[in-house]
Amino acid sequence: MMKLPDPVQKVVDNLSDLPSIGPRQAVRLAFYLLGEKKESLRVLAESIDGLRGIKTCTRCFFIHQREGDLCDICANPARNPRIIMVVEKETDLLSLENTKKFTGRYFICGPIPKTGFIEPWQKTRLESLKRHIEEGLGGQADEIILAFNPTTLGDFQTSLIMKELVPLAKKISRLGRGLPTGGEIEFADDETLGSALERRG
Amino acid sequence: MMKLPDPVQKVVDNLSDLPSIGPRQAVRLAFYLLGEKKESLRVLAESIDGLRGIKTCTRCFFIHQREGDLCDICANPARNPRIIMVVEKETDLLSLENTKKFTGRYFICGPIPKTGFIEPWQKTRLESLKRHIEEGLGGQADEIILAFNPTTLGDFQTSLIMKELVPLAKKISRLGRGLPTGGEIEFADDETLGSALERRG
Repeated sequence: MMKLPDPVQKVVDNLSDLPSIGPRQAVRLAFYLLGEKKESLRVLAESIDGLRGIKTCTRCFFIHQREGDLCDICANPARNPRIIMVVEKETDLLSLENTKKFTGRYFICGPIPKTGFIEPWQKTRLESLKRHIEEGLGGQADEIILAFNPTTLGDFQTSLIMKELVPLAKKISRLGRGLPTGGEIEFADDETLGSALERRG
Repeated sequence: MMKLPDPVQKVVDNLSDLPSIGPRQAVRLAFYLLGEKKESLRVLAESIDGLRGIKTCTRCFFIHQREGDLCDICANPARNPRIIMVVEKETDLLSLENTKKFTGRYFICGPIPKTGFIEPWQKTRLESLKRHIEEGLGGQADEIILAFNPTTLGDFQTSLIMKELVPLAKKISRLGRGLPTGGEIEFADDETLGSALERRG
């Protein structure tokens, strides 16, 4: 590749480091940015730099910008603190929250490692959840929902985390399995169809 | 969608404005950035802001960082100034330059409008090319290569620009048409196969 001016190459490198952005897309984006007004570049740069001010909720690990330690959801007295949905990542929380069907609290466990086993840093997070349930909820939540992706990896980690959390909740549940709305029976895989049959009702 | 903290929403909006980045990818990228070290955020932001210092070559409109007005290629005495390749955009120049088979100069005409017609701002660029050929090359280049995409739109604009440039070059050429290396005859479209036959040799 022809040598680009250093500042441009730097942007290309930084953009390539982002997930789901390949080297060619990074070059295209950099040239798109070069064609932008100088003011837009400043605005984009400042907005990215502004992320440095965002805090993490000490209870559920979601992001927030409030005065105290807790995020909007954990600080909201209208949300049932005794029902906790454990999710892998922030974007999963957003999708679930979007359904407007859940009025409990969340707990972000962090991205599942490729091995599926619980890593030390996840262990630390789970310890903080246990501590919260012991100190804040008298030792047992009413329900813990393990909401990981319905994949081999997600199922594996679900089974490991379930063992850890069994003593901490009256009920442990998982998200329902079955046909996705809009899906077609003809094209559903055996697993999905099997779940749909088992859980019919 | 659940309301995100303003600084996060701002990044999502700014990223969504970039070409080829959809709203969902923008959210994912923003959360990825939130998980990055504060130092990496500063580095990314500063690199984007650093693009403001990049200049545009007054002759060919490619980017550069040199002291004077000209880019590395236009300022390079080893490049033949009498052969000019007209391209649509910077990334096309990079791809062509990458072949290491061209030792002339370039001229960036700018993205082809959806209508295919020559817009006033392209007209202005072409005028500057004409002026350069008149003042710098005595009125005629040895060759002008029109290197637009081999699409309906690219071919249409090529024909329009060719009319403008005919008096300014001893020879006007276009990139060769035929089978792409690695392609299969069985799957080539009629146009491509026709070109490959016509231009066999």
